[in-house]
Amino acid sequence: MKRLLIIGGSDAGISAALRARELDPDVQVTVIVADRYPNYSICGIPYYLSGEVQAATDLAHRKAADIEAAGIQLLLEHKAEQVDASSRTVTVRDTKQQLTTLEYDTLILGTGAVSVCPDISGVDLPGIFTLRWMGDTFDIERYLKDKKPRSVTLIGGGYIGMEMAEALSRRGLSVTVVEYADSVLTTVDTDLGQRVKAELTRHGVQVVNGVGVQAIESGSDGRLEIKGSNSFTHVTEMVLVVVGARPMTNLAASAGIPTGLRGAIKVNSSMETGVPHIYAAGDCVETWHRLLNAYTYLPLGTTSHKQGRIAGENAVGGKQEYAGSLGTQSVKVFDLVIARTGLHDADAKQAGIDSFSADTEVWDHKVYYPGARKMLIRVTGEQRTGRLLGAQIIGHYGAEVSKRIDIFAAALFHGMTIEALNDLDLSYTPPLSSPWDPVQISAQNWLQQC
Amino acid sequence: MKRLLIIGGSDAGISAALRARELDPDVQVTVIVADRYPNYSICGIPYYLSGEVQAATDLAHRKAADIEAAGIQLLLEHKAEQVDASSRTVTVRDTKQQLTTLEYDTLILGTGAVSVCPDISGVDLPGIFTLRWMGDTFDIERYLKDKKPRSVTLIGGGYIGMEMAEALSRRGLSVTVVEYADSVLTTVDTDLGQRVKAELTRHGVQVVNGVGVQAIESGSDGRLEIKGSNSFTHVTEMVLVVVGARPMTNLAASAGIPTGLRGAIKVNSSMETGVPHIYAAGDCVETWHRLLNAYTYLPLGTTSHKQGRIAGENAVGGKQEYAGSLGTQSVKVFDLVIARTGLHDADAKQAGIDSFSADTEVWDHKVYYPGARKMLIRVTGEQRTGRLLGAQIIGHYGAEVSKRIDIFAAALFHGMTIEALNDLDLSYTPPLSSPWDPVQISAQNWLQQC
Repeated sequence: MKRLLIIGGSDAGISAALRARELDPDVQVTVIVADRYPNYSICGIPYYLSGEVQAATDLAHRKAADIEAAGIQLLLEHKAEQVDASSRTVTVRDTKQQLTTLEYDTLILGTGAVSVCPDISGVDLPGIFTLRWMGDTFDIERYLKDKKPRSVTLIGGGYIGMEMAEALSRRGLSVTVVEYADSVLTTVDTDLGQRVKAELTRHGVQVVNGVGVQAIESGSDGRLEIKGSNSFTHVTEMVLVVVGARPMTNLAASAGIPTGLRGAIKVNSSMETGVPHIYAAGDCVETWHRLLNAYTYLPLGTTSHKQGRIAGENAVGGKQEYAGSLGTQSVKVFDLVIARTGLHDADAKQAGIDSFSADTEVWDHKVYYPGARKMLIRVTGEQRTGRLLGAQIIGHYGAEVSKRIDIFAAALFHGMTIEALNDLDLSYTPPLSSPWDPVQISAQNWLQQC
Repeated sequence: MKRLLIIGGSDAGISAALRARELDPDVQVTVIVADRYPNYSICGIPYYLSGEVQAATDLAHRKAADIEAAGIQLLLEHKAEQVDASSRTVTVRDTKQQLTTLEYDTLILGTGAVSVCPDISGVDLPGIFTLRWMGDTFDIERYLKDKKPRSVTLIGGGYIGMEMAEALSRRGLSVTVVEYADSVLTTVDTDLGQRVKAELTRHGVQVVNGVGVQAIESGSDGRLEIKGSNSFTHVTEMVLVVVGARPMTNLAASAGIPTGLRGAIKVNSSMETGVPHIYAAGDCVETWHRLLNAYTYLPLGTTSHKQGRIAGENAVGGKQEYAGSLGTQSVKVFDLVIARTGLHDADAKQAGIDSFSADTEVWDHKVYYPGARKMLIRVTGEQRTGRLLGAQIIGHYGAEVSKRIDIFAAALFHGMTIEALNDLDLSYTPPLSSPWDPVQISAQNWLQQC
């Protein structure tokens, strides 16, 4: 019986395990899970900390019992300590510090990422947290309950920073976001980030841009004093450091598996690493970008699921290939949804592509029907060829912003021109769209302006 | 100066006019409009009659003044009486019965469709209406205001029947729908139509299926008695006959322009008719179906806008081709949205394609986040090849149903397989989707079941 061993019980690992079992009911699948929370939705943590999700167990994409019912063995609270590719073994340590050596025919690494902890003096003081795993989540929840802080400062204005700003505002804390860049949410253009900042401000969140945090000091009253560039000082009762993630690949590197960008594991389109019989997927690997035709580091849950499914399929003899990422992302910030896909002008410039962007303010549905809301669609295309490069949308929650970015994503996947977007037979009814969908109206506007 | 004459001031005609002027500021464009309502949103009429749209003028996609500001001459309340292709002239009659002959270099026919009026005795009695144009709308509105009927019967359970059932319920009338078929909304599968019927029933609309209306008689109390097959009788105070549309092409036919299916004008992919210098677009033409590789009669506003834009472009020397329809449609019925695209099993069978469909009940977003709603997605694919053929979705208003059908539509446009749907980099955030979007979850379920 073939033995498939998987290190990592989050999205990539569990997706791989399930896909392998789905295709080959004879394969023996074991997943080594560092904590007690296999396949938990990391993206859901802010909604648990906000109080919107009642029980932490609700965050599981799939329950452990369901995973086990699919014939998958979960080794919870086991840490993989060493991979020996020559003997095809992995050494694991359990909570009693007992070491066990497991043999594999095929190994999949889904070790994920860890929070980046920047070089800030005092970052280890009590009341300062990073946030990525369930352990972090419970630490934060306990602190919120025990210490009842009235204020929190988020260092970092990315996706998790945005979601946590909303979550902790909702929980009644006074929230400050400190971000080094000129706006928040730097995955969209700066001026669009400014709109997100305005939404935060409108909801009472203080946003400070252009400040690099240098030190955090503990005050006599138990509060924390943050010091940053440009003489920035700020007193707060709690700090979350949410400045991004880096691949967790020390295990892979020590096993001689080639790594690349930011230390992420190098994989080919079949999700094979440079070492025979070892696949890797998810936040620990370099990800192929379909438009840039290059590897990037782009850790996303959607990508982890896709890559995990492919690794799982190929591990049992399949022939799937990862088609590449477009960097499609969406986030809800209070009443707004911000979504993006593909390349923007800055990305295009960096890639040497002559791009042009056009903005269109457009109603989500016929304005005569109640509840119409304007959204901003920024379309980016290649000037010379008219090829669609990317899109960014900011609109209201409920205005089908996120699935409209997906129409762009589907078009990008197929290398469509902006003109050809007009050929798509998209749905229309007055309460939900226009005879030309906003996607197409923004395409026509790009064509007029370019 | 080139003279472009357009007969018909609805979606196709106005789209053609605007596109021609956009590309060629020197072209002289005249649009012959039978009524006083150029470019009104026919699809919006139910929302005017429901009372949700305050002023009828709000229904205009574009205001007459804006159209004229684009350099387009509108001949309102002019009826085109005759087309003479040999002399390139059109004779029009104004409200004073004055005849004028207009010359053209290029003519575009956008004459649209008329309501089908079935062979029912008594169908001309007062209180019985068809509904397609603004004139019909005002007749109905006047009747509702003057006669204050407490009940209405809709003959026909298609899109307009569904929308009017909701609209007139909202207005306080007791509504009955009489439909010949076994369910309503026969553009989706019968069992899905039954779900729509249940939604109508839940909102107090009485739905009668399997009855062909044969006669309507006027009672002594001014009420109308409807008689149908299977000994059906029903007394009502008002009747709307909404059983579909047929192309309005007598003008074209008398000019020797070849017509085909249901009398619709034959066009090629450039929207040229069989007569030189004459294009046609919209509800008066046969429409190319991208999946069936055949012409159909499929009158839709989305299609009219597309075909009009292409006809307008080509009329001033462009080289655009219509890429074909997928039959994408959506409709809101009370709290539900029903959307469809492509081929279903019945269509596939008729086309000799070996199809298989799988149903998936799936949450619109992560169930741990408040407000999650289940939607039903039925995916249809070709068994032998795994090629996507079509999809139907029923879900709640606000659950991004309509733009999810558009992801399927974009995939169909490119001939994707159902397996390849998993490669699409679609957006995810817990309040709006899952790491695998419902579209992909339903694809995976199809693959498992097939």
